[in-house]
Amino acid sequence: MNGHANGGGAAGVRAPPGKADKGADFANYFCTYAFLYHQKEMLSDRVRMDAYYDSIFKNARHFKGKTVLDVGTGSGILAIWSAQAGARKVYAVEATDMAAHARSLVAGNNMEGVVEVIEGSIEDITLPEQVDIIISEWMGYFLVRESMFDSVIYARDRWLKPTGMMYPSHARMFLAPMQTSLGERKIQEYQHAMSDWDRFTQDTHDQYGVDMSVLNNPYREEQRKYFLQTSVWNSLHPNQIIGQPALVKEFDCLKATLEEVSIVRSQFRIPIDSGNLKIAGFAGWFDVHFRGCPSDPADNEVELTTAPSVDDTTHWGQQVFLLHPPVSTRTGDVLVGELDITRSVQNHRLMDVKVAHSLERQGSPAATPTISTFFIE
Amino acid sequence: MNGHANGGGAAGVRAPPGKADKGADFANYFCTYAFLYHQKEMLSDRVRMDAYYDSIFKNARHFKGKTVLDVGTGSGILAIWSAQAGARKVYAVEATDMAAHARSLVAGNNMEGVVEVIEGSIEDITLPEQVDIIISEWMGYFLVRESMFDSVIYARDRWLKPTGMMYPSHARMFLAPMQTSLGERKIQEYQHAMSDWDRFTQDTHDQYGVDMSVLNNPYREEQRKYFLQTSVWNSLHPNQIIGQPALVKEFDCLKATLEEVSIVRSQFRIPIDSGNLKIAGFAGWFDVHFRGCPSDPADNEVELTTAPSVDDTTHWGQQVFLLHPPVSTRTGDVLVGELDITRSVQNHRLMDVKVAHSLERQGSPAATPTISTFFIE
Repeated sequence: MNGHANGGGAAGVRAPPGKADKGADFANYFCTYAFLYHQKEMLSDRVRMDAYYDSIFKNARHFKGKTVLDVGTGSGILAIWSAQAGARKVYAVEATDMAAHARSLVAGNNMEGVVEVIEGSIEDITLPEQVDIIISEWMGYFLVRESMFDSVIYARDRWLKPTGMMYPSHARMFLAPMQTSLGERKIQEYQHAMSDWDRFTQDTHDQYGVDMSVLNNPYREEQRKYFLQTSVWNSLHPNQIIGQPALVKEFDCLKATLEEVSIVRSQFRIPIDSGNLKIAGFAGWFDVHFRGCPSDPADNEVELTTAPSVDDTTHWGQQVFLLHPPVSTRTGDVLVGELDITRSVQNHRLMDVKVAHSLERQGSPAATPTISTFFIE
Repeated sequence: MNGHANGGGAAGVRAPPGKADKGADFANYFCTYAFLYHQKEMLSDRVRMDAYYDSIFKNARHFKGKTVLDVGTGSGILAIWSAQAGARKVYAVEATDMAAHARSLVAGNNMEGVVEVIEGSIEDITLPEQVDIIISEWMGYFLVRESMFDSVIYARDRWLKPTGMMYPSHARMFLAPMQTSLGERKIQEYQHAMSDWDRFTQDTHDQYGVDMSVLNNPYREEQRKYFLQTSVWNSLHPNQIIGQPALVKEFDCLKATLEEVSIVRSQFRIPIDSGNLKIAGFAGWFDVHFRGCPSDPADNEVELTTAPSVDDTTHWGQQVFLLHPPVSTRTGDVLVGELDITRSVQNHRLMDVKVAHSLERQGSPAATPTISTFFIE
């Protein structure tokens, strides 16, 4: 045997029955956040840092004398900023051992009188009071990966005052057609993997008397999933986007429900840019806004966008869903379709994505939609 | 946030109290084995395959008409070989979804009348009878990583007839002083990581008003562990070994107890090869033997060794434990010390390793041992 304790994720493994297993969830998910190295990666994302920093200090009035809850505080940076902006009390909740480091950081920045670090899952801990503001950096790839918004919604419904506000206050998801040569490379890698398998089954038959060919299809399926159907992290150049990005979902963080965030279903209709372009796939990204709340809007609205950019790239990049084969378009074509994101049965923090798309072309009959299945791993 | 659901392992995360959590164990460990790609990697290890193939077919007499239990059958190859060698009945137990593929492979090789694939942990399933042979490929890096021998011992005590035999029958662990330039590279990577941290803390202070320097020590500790104290997989050339390998542990698979395998403690005494050599670290590897049992020895003993080799390399390679700094030796020096392997508190399938070593030099007083701590991740 030779199992990589650190590799593989839970894909393909029968999940324990019933709800998400807490031990597995720690092993699969929270573990990453227990490393300072990983915290440093996030703290080095200038776009992310600037947005949260500005949202707090350019709206310090919101924080002055208020109580704040930071859901998933990590190193504690948002809690410390909230305190520096004048919060009376900040509850900084962290599920991993990172809580101990957050506590040090709070003390090292002389905020132990204001910031209280609480180690535990937000669903398990208790606060002594309701709060005025919930701040959290909960966004995963394509917004929804990690399903951490669930915990923020839970915190809101349990601990936010009726007059309270959310930082960020709004979140949006975008989908856009794109061009890239990445798909060709993935196809080559997939083909290489399959030739390798053919050689392997031949060898195993010849040398060890076992016919592996009954596994050809499952192997092909596994490799297809890995090379062709798993979305790819990419930091795209804006000119790779070849049609107006479609707003596929918008969340008001004060109102969003668990039902709304657990299944994202949206139709899109995107005129393709002029020129006979090839759609190699779809790019998905998100932005969030800090607008305060209707009764007490932000003095200075701040936006954090993870859209393709030359200068303002983020560690989130974009998620790329490759079409095999690419779709040829003509000037005037309109890409219409439906996006459908649900949670993986095996790991509720990962996503299954279905895209049904077709091209509307003047003078042609409506085309049957092509359905593609993807996985955000 | 941006958690890698597939990354990181459970290090640094507070493990659920009490025994190993089953969900976490699946997420951390078994998951890998649910991928055909990973099975293929193991099935492509010629040294591994030849040893098991020969052990079965060159001792087919042991298998003829007998009942066999394969613990952790994976793709089912050992079970199929056992059946091909004449077993009356083979129980092939597999904890992951790979069980379905094993079932296909058994059918594809016309052995469904002999091989019964049972999906479940060996600790949870029930067999209708005691067996004559337990076969298993349970060995992890440096033999003990993965702690899968536990399951084989459990299977033996529960399901092996008193007259039964183990395939393999014996296992041995070796430790040897070695030379490599890998340590210098790791030191450079570590120093680079620390300079990077210094720049990061300076930037965070200047731009975002937060002093991260209280985390300097925890960060250093985390990076030291990662770059300097975690053992490294390597496929060593035999001439990198600079002293007679010490046999640090030998297991008779018929007799080994859970206590014996969960803590490996051994003293070693290794004359260093002539020439003023530098000990850059220790290499650890294992071999297993197929000797049948005392009352019915193998017709043809087979050995599977993962020692450094030019032609017969394995996917296990060797585990390298680097010394920082390396130790200079003179001709005539003898390396003496103690090896101590225990299980990681956070993940019982990973190991904590302590090596206390010193050099005996003629005419010099006994040196105080240097103690190094390592982690097999």
